[in-house]
This record gives sequence, structure tokens and C-alpha cells, in this order.
Amino acid sequence: MNIANIIDRLREIMADESVERLQEALDSYHEADLADVFAQMKPEERLQCFKLLNLEKAADLIEYLSPQLQVELLGELDEEVASKIITKLPHDAAADVLGDMDEDESETYLDKLPHKFSQEVRELLTYNEDTAGGIMNPLVLTVGFDMTVQDVLNTIRNKAEKDSMELYYVYVVDKQNHLLGVVSLRKLLTSPTTQQVSEIMIRDIVKLHVDDYSDYIVDEFLKYQYNALPVVDLYNRLKGMVTWDDVHDLFEEETTEEIYQSSGISTEIVDEDQILSGNVFKAIIARLPWLFITLIGEFLAVNVANHFNATLTALPIIAIFMPLLAGLGGNIGTQSITLMVRGLSTGQVTLNSAVFHIFREMGIGLIIGSVFGILVTLTTWGWQHNIELGIIVGIAMIINMTMATVIGTFTPFALKSMNVDPAIASGPIIATTIDVIGLAIYFGLVSAFLINKLA
Amino acid sequence: MNIANIIDRLREIMADESVERLQEALDSYHEADLADVFAQMKPEERLQCFKLLNLEKAADLIEYLSPQLQVELLGELDEEVASKIITKLPHDAAADVLGDMDEDESETYLDKLPHKFSQEVRELLTYNEDTAGGIMNPLVLTVGFDMTVQDVLNTIRNKAEKDSMELYYVYVVDKQNHLLGVVSLRKLLTSPTTQQVSEIMIRDIVKLHVDDYSDYIVDEFLKYQYNALPVVDLYNRLKGMVTWDDVHDLFEEETTEEIYQSSGISTEIVDEDQILSGNVFKAIIARLPWLFITLIGEFLAVNVANHFNATLTALPIIAIFMPLLAGLGGNIGTQSITLMVRGLSTGQVTLNSAVFHIFREMGIGLIIGSVFGILVTLTTWGWQHNIELGIIVGIAMIINMTMATVIGTFTPFALKSMNVDPAIASGPIIATTIDVIGLAIYFGLVSAFLINKLA
Repeated sequence: MNIANIIDRLREIMADESVERLQEALDSYHEADLADVFAQMKPEERLQCFKLLNLEKAADLIEYLSPQLQVELLGELDEEVASKIITKLPHDAAADVLGDMDEDESETYLDKLPHKFSQEVRELLTYNEDTAGGIMNPLVLTVGFDMTVQDVLNTIRNKAEKDSMELYYVYVVDKQNHLLGVVSLRKLLTSPTTQQVSEIMIRDIVKLHVDDYSDYIVDEFLKYQYNALPVVDLYNRLKGMVTWDDVHDLFEEETTEEIYQSSGISTEIVDEDQILSGNVFKAIIARLPWLFITLIGEFLAVNVANHFNATLTALPIIAIFMPLLAGLGGNIGTQSITLMVRGLSTGQVTLNSAVFHIFREMGIGLIIGSVFGILVTLTTWGWQHNIELGIIVGIAMIINMTMATVIGTFTPFALKSMNVDPAIASGPIIATTIDVIGLAIYFGLVSAFLINKLA
Repeated sequence: MNIANIIDRLREIMADESVERLQEALDSYHEADLADVFAQMKPEERLQCFKLLNLEKAADLIEYLSPQLQVELLGELDEEVASKIITKLPHDAAADVLGDMDEDESETYLDKLPHKFSQEVRELLTYNEDTAGGIMNPLVLTVGFDMTVQDVLNTIRNKAEKDSMELYYVYVVDKQNHLLGVVSLRKLLTSPTTQQVSEIMIRDIVKLHVDDYSDYIVDEFLKYQYNALPVVDLYNRLKGMVTWDDVHDLFEEETTEEIYQSSGISTEIVDEDQILSGNVFKAIIARLPWLFITLIGEFLAVNVANHFNATLTALPIIAIFMPLLAGLGGNIGTQSITLMVRGLSTGQVTLNSAVFHIFREMGIGLIIGSVFGILVTLTTWGWQHNIELGIIVGIAMIINMTMATVIGTFTPFALKSMNVDPAIASGPIIATTIDVIGLAIYFGLVSAFLINKLA
């Protein structure tokens, strides 16, 4: 599916002002494709198209759209129509949409929704949106544990269709709705119809608590690889379920936060969505803290350099190699951090293997540093006709790159062992640390060997 | 579940040499937890535990283990036992395990497996492991399109249990196995039992082709959010299905590659697994290319600095501010790149919004640059008692940080519009470019204003 082609086609039909053909064209695309199309259309274009969809398709499409577009499109519709579309959404999706609106606006809609639906959605809205309670769909199929397989199949036939439930597992509960067991549809379909569900249900249930946070939920899904997990309250009463497609969104958000953090963009103070396209000042606040720490760190570097002022004055040529040393030390150090932080995050690297990785990275730094050191020595010699300077710069390069890999490897492990998220340390801070130490080594070498030689 | 606690408990039982208690303890944990436990145990410990599991549990556990551990554990077992465990795996998992072994070893096992199973696994092994053919499970439930719902339910009862099939959808095919439609279990369970499947099946099927690559597969799953997608060959014959848990692994791999690339670690030449803990020279090869380009880039920076040798000699103090400017320009530029590359990857940023983002980032660079510029001017003034130098360094800071955000934003868009993966450009290259331009601006400013003033 080429989204640009679909947009071109829809635009042509809109230019012809043929409502029927436009409606037909819109109907022929999957909602997931239309969502991509809408994201790239102009606001007036997508509104024109959205109004032509039937309620079912409009609701399906809403689920695939970004929160901004959801609110934008529903806000432009007649309130009655918008309420009807919201009613067609699964409860969790409806709560998401209403939660992203201003309170006045969402209240207007909640009042217009069918009583039971609005009550259930209101309950969802009381949970923190980053917890299982805020993410779950409260509409799950529950059955009594004295039912037979045939009873359950009948229940599914009656209830699941009417309430447009998502069906992954059937949850077995007692009269007070306490979760007793889980039966997969597969097990249900392959068991004798006269068997009791209590005999085929799984009793050791992997479950979530309404207050579990999204990072924990993601970890549980990735670990156990179920399609859906039940959500219970403090008393083990079943409140809803979280499905893998909800988790996928969480997972993508978490990955984005991990990537942002690695370049010193703070997702803790400012919401991730705001950073990319919201208020400029919020974006600045997200970016400022680590830049400010870099500023302080680099002032340290300036101080180190200033400490060797006499050396610099005696031999100004040494200054020109500063960016070379800082640049390569910073880059190879960043590679080490990236590998360790990501490895710790996926579980490929554990604290147990810290020593192994520190020595391995040190070896890599030493080998690459030596190759580059020799290259730099030869180049400097050939260019400046000064073999001593070349050797000093080369040695500084070897020490600098080796030191950078060790610091880049050691720091994430040290933070992890102190229970600090290693991602927070990445990039900015370590690059600055490497800058400071690298400069000190370089100027130290120059002062110790080169100045004496020349003097 | 605290993995460290489980390990401690198991170690205590092992010290007691009570086989029965160890077996009981192992049985009480979920395979996903045991996989985490095994990853952190010593090789001899995990072998001891693994041997105590029954075949079913051993096979379930194997699926959760990393390829290295799979091969390690099976290799230590008696070949007969190992073959039995492999036979209990889903076809795709069996092919993965055998594909990770040496050819001799996998051949030994393939010969020992039941004929039909080994034949199907052999076919899977002919596909590239990064394509739908290499990832899919060939065992899918197919039904004829003239069957009724009741026929299908009977088929499920007979076939699905026996072949331990994964059940998400039922695929409707003709006699030559051409894919005609898809029926979800939910639809099946809520439709009248006398209805024909051809009437309830979805005909507009989202499907994969055996040769589709993993990045395309991930995109399709994320977009359409189905639990499973069917895989067909060139003639639309159904060959298997890919399920969301397969895709999760692909997704994690892709994210890792994206993150590695951003710090200049090439995943195209060397397999991702090798970089972190494989052969040191492979790891060096993955890291060398972008470091080498950095080396060349930084030599350019050295050249720029050298060009201003006279300025440096006249006023060596200016050298000490080089790391400050380079560090902050590099960091804020990296933030911009990170935001754009990630945004382009998730779809939150599109080429259409390039101009908006370039101006937005420029504004952010200008504001943060101005704040930092003033701070640097004041600090330098107070410290070096030289207001002119302070002003020049401050102005260089403003220009440098603004330039860095513009380059960091523009480059990913430029690459994307040329159909080059923007992730490739991140970090190393842009940091170097910013270094070179930043130095030129700084020395240019110093030469133009400061040297004249002082002279």
C-alpha cells in the first residue's frame, strides 16, 4: 500500500466532487491504511473524508488514529454523531479518547453516552493512564467454574457478539468475581463439551494488578508472551484485561523514551508527545537539564586546558589536535555505552557479566586505539614534520580511546548495581567526562615529554 | 518474581543434593521465569536443572531461551532425548534451534526426527531466516470453504489438539490450498453452527509473502494489529502463519539495530548478536567504519584549526574554549537528530513537516544557545577579566548551537527524501560535521574581531 498514491487518488475524487465515488473509495481501504492517509492529509481534507464514513468504520478508524487527530476529528463533528461513534469504541479506546479531551468537552460526551457505557468509562478514567487500570478493557468474558464447556460455548454465543467483546481467553470467576482460572479458546474448542471448565482451566495465572505501571506490564507481556493478561484489584477481583496491541503502543513509547534519554532528552519532566511537536518551551525544558550539566562539565574541561596555559603558550600547535582526540574518544565511548545500556535493557547483558564486558571493551578500545594512534602518528609526522609531536598525539589517542571504552562500559553497570536506570547516564555526561579526562591526559603527556624535549 | 531469589533457592536445594525437591521446585516456576534463571546460572547448574525437567516443560523452556543457550543445553544432552525435545517444539521454533547449530549437528538431529516433522522443518530451513518463510509456523488450521461452522468446530476438535496447533484464526482454502478467506475464532463461536464459512469469512485478507523481509513484517503487524498473519507463496498458496510473538522478537531486534546505528555501530556487516559478546574482531569490524569516518572528519577539524595557527599563536587562551563549544554543539545537535530519526521511524514525523521541524529546532537552538551564550560570556568575563573574549565565545556559542540544531534536523530529512535510512547518519557523522563548522565559526570570529582589537 503506497499511502501517497491513496492520497492522490482521494484528492482527485474530491476535486471531482463526487460524494458517492469518494465514499466508495474510502470504504475500499483498511482502517489502518486510512489512518496513515489521514495523518498526512490537510485538516479540512480529512474532515471531509471522515464525515463520509459509516459509524462502524469511523469508530474502527478512530482507534488507529493518534490522540491529537482523534480529538480534532470528533470535535469537528456534530456532538450526537460523535457520541454515537464513541459508543462503538471498545471501552478502553473510548476512555483514551475522552481522557485526551478537555474536561468540559469529555463531560458533554459522557452525558450523551448510554448510561452503563458512560459509567464504565468513567471508572476507567479514575485510573492513572499509565497503569493497567487505565489501559485495560473492562469488558471480558467471565464464566462460572461449575459450567461445562458447552455452557461456556453458549455463553460466548450470547454475550460475546452482543457486547462486541475481544476474545482471547475465557476467565473463570466465582460469584464475587474473584479470578479463579483461565481457559484458552483453543483448550475450550478441543475439550469434550461435557467437561467442567474447572477441570481444564489453568490455575497458576499470570495476572496484572490495576495499579501496575506500564513498564512492568510491558516486561510481563514480553516475558510470558501471552496475547492478553487479566487485570485484578487488591482482592483478586477481575477488573478487565490488557491485550497485546495495547502493550505494543506502550512498548513503542518506552523504546522512544529509552532512545530520547540516551541523548539527554528528559522524558520525566515533559511528556514525550510534547517534546516533538508541542509547546517550544516544554521542549526546551526537556532538553535543558543535561545540556546544562554538559555546560558545567565542559567548563571543567576548559579549566583543565587553562591549567596548561603555559604549555599552550609555549607550543600553540598542540591545540589543533584537541578536537581529534575529544571526537574519537567521545564516539568510541558512546558506542560502549550504547551497547551496555541496550544490552542491560534487553537482558542480553547482566550485572554478572560486568567484568567480562569491561575487559572485552577495553581490549576493543586498545586495538582500535592502537590502529588509530599509529595512523595519527604517521599523518602528523608527514604533515607537521615533527615525529615527537606525532608520537605524543598517537599515544594520547591510544590511552584516550581505551579509557573511553572502559568508562563507557563501567558506568552503566555501576548505575545498574545502584538501581539507577543506566539509560540516564548515556551520551551527554559520559562524553563530557571523557572530554575532561582525555584533555588532562593529552596535556599531561605534552607537558611531561614534549615541552621538556623542546626546551 | 525475583530471579535472584529463585536462583538462591535452587542453589540451596542443589547443595542438599535432593533431586526430588529440585524437580518439584523447577516444576513450580513458569518456563519464562526459568529462562531468566537459566540465563544467569553457571553452565553446569543449568544443565543439572535442565536434565530434571520432563520433555514437555523442557520444550516449553527451550522456546524462551536465547539461541546460544538452546544450542548449549541440547548439545549436552543425549541425542535421543534432545531429538524428543525438538519434536515437541512448534515447527518454527525447531527450525530456529536447528538453524543455529552447525550443519553436521543439525543433520544428526534431523535424521532422528519423525519423517514428516523433519521434512517440514527442512523446508523451513530453506527460507532466509529474516523472511516470512523463515519465521512462519507451517502448521495452520485450514478448512474448505463449503464447510459449515459446525464442520469447522469438529475439525478444530480433531486436528488442533493432535498437532498442537496455535489457534488464532481459521484459514479458508480451496483444494489447491489457495488462500480464500480468514475467520476469527470469535466470529466462528458467535455464528450459527449451520452457516457456511464462506459467508462469514473475511475476503480482503492482510497477508504476507514468504519472501517478505522482517522489517516489512514488523510494519504490517504494527499497522494492522492482528494477532497473526497468513503467509502465502507467489501463487497465493497458504504456506504458514506468523504470530505476534514472533514479531515481537523481530521488533526488539530492529529497535536494537536502530539504537546501535545511531551510535555508529554497523549491524549490516556484522550480525547483531556477534557485536555484544561474539568474536572481538567481528565487534571491531562493526565499530570501525564510522569511527574511521570520524577520524577523517576530525582531521578536517584539525586542518581548520591549523589554518588559524597564527591566531592561536597570537592568543593561545582561545584554545581552551574549543572543547566547550564542540561539546555543547555536539550534544544539542545529537538531540535534534535523535528526535527526528525516531520520529521518522515511528511515523510521528513525516517529510511533509520537515520545514516546520527545521524552524522549530532552529528556534530551540537559538533560545538555548542564547541562554548558554550569556552564561558563558559572564563566566568568562568574571574569570578571565576579558569582556571581549567573553562576548566572542558567547556569540560563537549561540551560532554554534543554532547551527547544530539545524544540521541535526535537516540531515535526517534529506537522507529520508533520498530514500536512505536516516538512522545511518546519526551521531558520529553529524557530531563531526558540527565540530568542523563550529571550529571554523569560532576561529573566524576570533580572527575577525578579537585579534584586530588586541593588535
